[in-house]
Amino acid sequence: MTVPNHFELIGTDGAARTGRLTTPHGVVRTPAFMPVGTAGAMKGLHWREVRDAGADIVLGNTYHLMLRPGAERIAALGGLQRFTTWNGPMLTDSGGFQVMSLAQLRKVNEQAVTFRSHIDGAAIELSPERAIEVQRLLGSDIAMQLDECVRLPADRADIERAMQLSLRWAERCKRAFETAPDGYMLFGIVQGGDVPELRHASAQGLIDIGFHGYAIGGLAVGEPQDVMLAMIEEAAPILPAERPRYLMGVGTPEDMLEAVARSIDMFDCVMPTRNGRHGLAFTQYGPINLRNAKHADDPRPLDEESDWPSARTYSRAYLHHLVRSSETLGAMLLSEINIAYYQRLMRDIRAAIAVGQFEEFRLRTRAAWERGDIAAR
Amino acid sequence: MTVPNHFELIGTDGAARTGRLTTPHGVVRTPAFMPVGTAGAMKGLHWREVRDAGADIVLGNTYHLMLRPGAERIAALGGLQRFTTWNGPMLTDSGGFQVMSLAQLRKVNEQAVTFRSHIDGAAIELSPERAIEVQRLLGSDIAMQLDECVRLPADRADIERAMQLSLRWAERCKRAFETAPDGYMLFGIVQGGDVPELRHASAQGLIDIGFHGYAIGGLAVGEPQDVMLAMIEEAAPILPAERPRYLMGVGTPEDMLEAVARSIDMFDCVMPTRNGRHGLAFTQYGPINLRNAKHADDPRPLDEESDWPSARTYSRAYLHHLVRSSETLGAMLLSEINIAYYQRLMRDIRAAIAVGQFEEFRLRTRAAWERGDIAAR
Repeated sequence: MTVPNHFELIGTDGAARTGRLTTPHGVVRTPAFMPVGTAGAMKGLHWREVRDAGADIVLGNTYHLMLRPGAERIAALGGLQRFTTWNGPMLTDSGGFQVMSLAQLRKVNEQAVTFRSHIDGAAIELSPERAIEVQRLLGSDIAMQLDECVRLPADRADIERAMQLSLRWAERCKRAFETAPDGYMLFGIVQGGDVPELRHASAQGLIDIGFHGYAIGGLAVGEPQDVMLAMIEEAAPILPAERPRYLMGVGTPEDMLEAVARSIDMFDCVMPTRNGRHGLAFTQYGPINLRNAKHADDPRPLDEESDWPSARTYSRAYLHHLVRSSETLGAMLLSEINIAYYQRLMRDIRAAIAVGQFEEFRLRTRAAWERGDIAAR
Repeated sequence: MTVPNHFELIGTDGAARTGRLTTPHGVVRTPAFMPVGTAGAMKGLHWREVRDAGADIVLGNTYHLMLRPGAERIAALGGLQRFTTWNGPMLTDSGGFQVMSLAQLRKVNEQAVTFRSHIDGAAIELSPERAIEVQRLLGSDIAMQLDECVRLPADRADIERAMQLSLRWAERCKRAFETAPDGYMLFGIVQGGDVPELRHASAQGLIDIGFHGYAIGGLAVGEPQDVMLAMIEEAAPILPAERPRYLMGVGTPEDMLEAVARSIDMFDCVMPTRNGRHGLAFTQYGPINLRNAKHADDPRPLDEESDWPSARTYSRAYLHHLVRSSETLGAMLLSEINIAYYQRLMRDIRAAIAVGQFEEFRLRTRAAWERGDIAAR
């Protein structure tokens, strides 16, 4: 049975692509950055700010949501889009990655991963079938297969075992998803660590099963950027050109720019909100640490050329004071400024690809980051 | 020399009053509730939300601001209104109250209070003259005299000593304020604990010195509500009717309603934001604890009749989830909902006084609070 395709490729420029992915809750313009709303909320942002910043789609974490408030409860309340009031496209991960990083006493076998909740210690089993059931209860527009992600560096044997297990789980997820209503999507996840042949085998195995889209997982887990980019280069040419490609958990603005140059369509990362909470702003001048004392008396805004009001309205001195005083408003402002910067970067990338000037844009943007911040006053 | 009066009494209804206080940064409609922006920020709220909620004026804490980022720095950056981007009327306290509650190794003598900063341990002297200098550097529209506030219960001798010291400090503050530009105001503070004669003496002493307005201080510091209301009743009739009256650090919606009935014009309190951070919402049904399990599956909004969008938009189930998960958005939403409720209450109080129906309004509002929340579903 052919899997329907909801992705439309609008233009390409070299390997870079721009397109439209149509979900039950709306259209996603690609390349797209998905802000991470971990437990049904975006830390420090109102939903209207996420939308105003230009995000078409957000990511929810199945692990957090299944533990609290619970998938069945969210389903009874009308699904995650309605529960949160976001009401737009949502992608959920499978929960597997966070079981590995957060849960206690986790044990992986052929059937499932079992673990204890980090909230109340309850024993929980997450099988491929349950991962799909939970994501369907949440009502996510795009569900992810359950996989096992190995931290790098790792032995080849470990990487291969996890990749093969992930392929068998991919098949079970596909079967569990068969009764999903039209328009909802399931993505397979290419694993294989930093071993090219394993990436090839994983990608080919997933294509043989057939998914709405394909993610590249198990990267941005500690390896150098060149390894990450090399693994994208291994996997991407094998993937069907007409399907969306999602690089999971990535990354910095530079990571995303380079991944787009290698044909990636979708990204997610906690970096804009997490770094914002720690006083770091992403700007056209590269990252700026507002905690730095040089900002204490600077009346200038973060970036007077920004199209995001908060980046123009507040002085660096005020942002510095808020960060140093641990005022919530500091985390709120820097998180929204960062989400807006990520979305602006995606918008500019899409526009550059559409007019065939992506390479010029890439070089110009990198050069501006490398020049660094405006001189201290 | 007569102190100019910037307060216009528009209407009275029984003892309740409504008026307009004109400051260099704008007009304040009274009765007014001043949200507390402790260290130059309102915890969990954007400044636009404070304004949209209907606040005309906010309060800044001199103690926090003088320690960080420093009064001279804020002056160099154009004053507190511009530094924060609030750009509207601001009242600052004198710093004295928080020296008593937060600073280490504090020592009060005739000259000043000396203490060590709770941030870095620096030794600091706060005299009446320095308290005024700091507030003028901050650029506050309304400065408060330095006083000594005694926690109740206390010995009469202690209360009297602190009240007399506060009167002498009031005189020194008045002299230090004499060179302030036109339009800026200085308020004296009636002290005297729970002893009627001392309240009378304090009020009369302040009137003899002469201030732009008069505050009643040293209440809401642990005494029962009836003691607080009795002390207002002692002090208020002595105060000049044409001057604004500010009850410091108060309070619950009920406290404010009863104080307005006793002629108070201005209030400030951290309760709407602090309680919001702890999961408590103020509503027309009285306070509602969103942490309570009965809200977990409730799809209804907090108050579908509210004119504040967030009180109508989000389900109780979602707010409950955010509070239980310690998501920042929960604190943000409940803080703004509470600030908006306080402002709505003030708006309705002003309207009721203007049409001579304050007593009906007071009884109706109290009855609604006493009926309590809508039934759980």
